[in-house]
Amino acid sequence: MRVELLTVGDELLLGDTINGNAAWLGRRLADHGVDVTRGVVVGDELDLIVEAVTAALGRADAVITTGGLGPTYDDLTRDALAKAAGVGLVRDPALERRLRERVARAGRELQPMALRMADVPEGARVIANPAGSAPGLRVELPGGIVYALPGVPFEMHTIMDETVLPELAEIAGLPAVARRTLRTARMWESVVATRLAEVEALDGVRLAYLPDPAEVKVRITVAGPGAAGRLAAVEARVRDLLGDAVYGAEDESLDRVVHRLLAERAATVATAESLTGGLIGAELTAMPGSSATFAGGMVTYATEAKHRLLGVPADLLAEEGAVHPDVAAAMAAGVRDALNATYGLAVTGVAGPDPQDGRPVGTIYIGVAGPERSLTVVGPKLPVPGAGPESRAVIRRMTVVHALELLRRVLLGLDVTERSGKARPDREDRG
Amino acid sequence: MRVELLTVGDELLLGDTINGNAAWLGRRLADHGVDVTRGVVVGDELDLIVEAVTAALGRADAVITTGGLGPTYDDLTRDALAKAAGVGLVRDPALERRLRERVARAGRELQPMALRMADVPEGARVIANPAGSAPGLRVELPGGIVYALPGVPFEMHTIMDETVLPELAEIAGLPAVARRTLRTARMWESVVATRLAEVEALDGVRLAYLPDPAEVKVRITVAGPGAAGRLAAVEARVRDLLGDAVYGAEDESLDRVVHRLLAERAATVATAESLTGGLIGAELTAMPGSSATFAGGMVTYATEAKHRLLGVPADLLAEEGAVHPDVAAAMAAGVRDALNATYGLAVTGVAGPDPQDGRPVGTIYIGVAGPERSLTVVGPKLPVPGAGPESRAVIRRMTVVHALELLRRVLLGLDVTERSGKARPDREDRG
Repeated sequence: MRVELLTVGDELLLGDTINGNAAWLGRRLADHGVDVTRGVVVGDELDLIVEAVTAALGRADAVITTGGLGPTYDDLTRDALAKAAGVGLVRDPALERRLRERVARAGRELQPMALRMADVPEGARVIANPAGSAPGLRVELPGGIVYALPGVPFEMHTIMDETVLPELAEIAGLPAVARRTLRTARMWESVVATRLAEVEALDGVRLAYLPDPAEVKVRITVAGPGAAGRLAAVEARVRDLLGDAVYGAEDESLDRVVHRLLAERAATVATAESLTGGLIGAELTAMPGSSATFAGGMVTYATEAKHRLLGVPADLLAEEGAVHPDVAAAMAAGVRDALNATYGLAVTGVAGPDPQDGRPVGTIYIGVAGPERSLTVVGPKLPVPGAGPESRAVIRRMTVVHALELLRRVLLGLDVTERSGKARPDREDRG
Repeated sequence: MRVELLTVGDELLLGDTINGNAAWLGRRLADHGVDVTRGVVVGDELDLIVEAVTAALGRADAVITTGGLGPTYDDLTRDALAKAAGVGLVRDPALERRLRERVARAGRELQPMALRMADVPEGARVIANPAGSAPGLRVELPGGIVYALPGVPFEMHTIMDETVLPELAEIAGLPAVARRTLRTARMWESVVATRLAEVEALDGVRLAYLPDPAEVKVRITVAGPGAAGRLAAVEARVRDLLGDAVYGAEDESLDRVVHRLLAERAATVATAESLTGGLIGAELTAMPGSSATFAGGMVTYATEAKHRLLGVPADLLAEEGAVHPDVAAAMAAGVRDALNATYGLAVTGVAGPDPQDGRPVGTIYIGVAGPERSLTVVGPKLPVPGAGPESRAVIRRMTVVHALELLRRVLLGLDVTERSGKARPDREDRG
C-alpha cells in the first residue's frame, strides 16, 4: 500500500509553520508498515488542492490530507474534495447539532462561518473528531481513498490513531501492530544498536533509535498475529540485552524516574551546579509536585562561591582549580547539608568553548553525596560536538543527563564505578 | 516568478527529520518577494527525483532542491539532474582538489566514495560551498533553472544567501532587499502589530511577527531602490513606535543584553529562583564568559529554604505564603548579599497546574535588589496558556523573560512602575 501526504496551508509555504504534521504522519505510518512515497505542500487555493489530490491518487492508493478544514474562507479542503469527486457539499445535521452544542457550552455565540465545518462532500463519510470542532472526512475517489484530517496536531493525532490507522491496516491487510518505547541514558546509539542486532533480525520486529544528547530511545514495533503478546517477550529480551541502561519506558523521563525513586525512599535531593548554571534544578522542577523530593539548589558558577556557600576547601580550589573530582564531591556534600536534603548532586566541568583550569572542553565531574557517604564519578569526558554555542548547549544538556542518571544508579544501588570511573571513599562533609 | 521546493530524503518521508529546510527557504524567499507555490518531498530514488524535478519545472520558473548531494550511494540528486538534462556526470578537477585538501587538512584518509561530491552534470555550474564539502549546483533545463543545495542546514543557508537569492532577484528583476530584526519583550503580539500599523502600510515594507513566550521579534523587510538606506529610516520609526520595549536587534538575546549592561557597569547579578527552578541561571550561563557578570544563584524551591538561605523573614512566609511581593523583594536582597553580587534578581510565583498559597496559576512576583535599594514588581499575572505540562513550561519560560527584562529596565533606569505594578520603598536587607 502506497500513501501520499498532502499538507494544505499558505503558512507552510511561507515557512511560518514547520511541517511537523508530515513528520508525525510519516513516522506513524512507517511504524505500521505503510510506505509514505511522497509529501506535497500546497497553499490555500482550490484548484491547486484539487489537482494535487488527483495527481496523488494517480500514483498512490490513498492520500492523507491535513489542514484546510476549519471555518474560515481560506479553509478549502472540503470544497476541493467535493470538486474532485464531482459532487456538491451538503450540510450534515448531526455535525451542525454538535457544533451548536459546543458553542453553547462555551457560552459563546455561533458565528455563521463556523457552520462551514458541518458541510460535507456528498457521499463522504464523517470521521468524528473527539478533540475539536472540525471533523475528519473519508472520500472515495476513482483513484483511491482520501482521508482529510484537521491541521491542529492534537486533533489530527487522535483521529489518525483512533480511526485512520486501523482502517488503513485493514484495507492493506496489515497485521496488528504493538509498540513500546524504552529509554536509555549514557549509552551510544551505535552501542545500543549493536547489542540489539539479534532483535532487529527477528521477523515482524522493527526497532527505531531516537537519539538525544546522552540519551537514546528505542522504539520497538511488533507486527503480526498476536503482536501484543509478542511485544512483551521482545521487550523483555531488549531489557536483558541493554541491562540497567534502561531507565524507563514511554513518557517516563529521567527526572520523573529520579523523583519516583526519591519519593519511594522518602528522600530529597539538592543540587549544586557549575557549568549547567541551573539546568539540573530546572529539569527537577519541570514536573508538577516536584517540591516533595527536590529541596533546592545552588548555582555556584564563580569559584569563590563554591568555597563560601558549599564549603569546598579553599586550598583544594587553589591547588586543583574548580574542575576536579574532589571539588564535585565536596560540592555535593555541601549542598546536601546547606539544604537539609538526603542527597546532594553536584556537577563541575568545562562547557566551552575554551578550556578551563587546564581541563579540556567536555570534561565533567559529577558528585553524589548520600545519607552515608559521598561518591564522585570521574568523567566520562564528553564528546565535543563541534565548536561554538551549539556545542556548549549540547555539553550542558549531556551533563544534566549524566548527573541524573548517576543519581538514579546510586538510588538503585547499581554499580557506578565500572561504568564511569573511580568511587571515592567516604569523606568528612564540609558543609 | 514562481519557485517550487523539492526536498529529497527518505528520513523526511519516514518522519525521522522534520522539514526545517523547506520552512527556512519559504520564509527567506517570501521575504524577498518570491512566491513558493509548492513543496514536494520525495525519497532517495533516482526516477522519482527526475520525475519530480521535471513536473515542478512544468509549473514553475525555478526549482530549489535540498539534499541528496552527499557522498553515499543513496545521494542521488546529482545523478537525477544529469538524467533530467540528458547528460552525463563529469568529475570537476577543482572540486576534486578541494576535497582532497579538506581531507588532508583534517588528517583523514580520502574515502573513494567522497569523490562523488566532485561529480557534476555536464554543463552545470558549480556553486561554491564555503561551509562544507558538497557544492551546490545550478542546472538549466528546458523548463527552467534548478538550484541544487546540500541538505545540511548551515551549508544550505550560506549558499542560499550568498548566491541563490541574489541570482533569483536579478533574474526576476526583483528590487534590492534589506532586512532587520528587532526584539521586544513583554508586549503582546497584537499590541506590537497595532502600534506598527502605519509602518505596515508603507509601500515596499513588510513586517513579520515572530512570537515566543513573552517576546515578539519584528522582522522588517524593505524592498525597492535604496532599500538599505530606507531600512534605516523605517527601523528608526519602528523604534519610536515601540519605545523601550525594544531591547535588542538581530541575535542579541535578552540574556546577552543583560550581560552587556552589567559589564558596562562593572556589576554582577545573582539569582534566587522559585518556580523557574534554575532556568534563569541557566539562561544567564548560556553564553560563554558569563562568569564575569553572573555571580551565581540559589534555587529555593522549598519555602523553608527561602528563609534559611535567603533570610526571608519566617513570619512573612507564615503570614503571606511563599508567593508574595515582599517575599520576592527579600529573596532578591538575600541572594545579592549571599553571593556578594551588585544586583539580586528573584522570582516567586505559581507555575501550576494547581494554585499555591491561594494564588492562581500564572501569578508571578519579581524582585530586583540593586546596590542601593530593592524593588519589587508585582505581576503581571501571566496569561495561562491552556492546562497541563505545556502550560507549566510556558509560564516558566515567560517568567524568565519577565525577570531579565525587569533587570534590564532597572539597569537602564527605565520606568518600571508604570508598566507593571508598584515600586516598593527601600528596605533593610535581610541576607
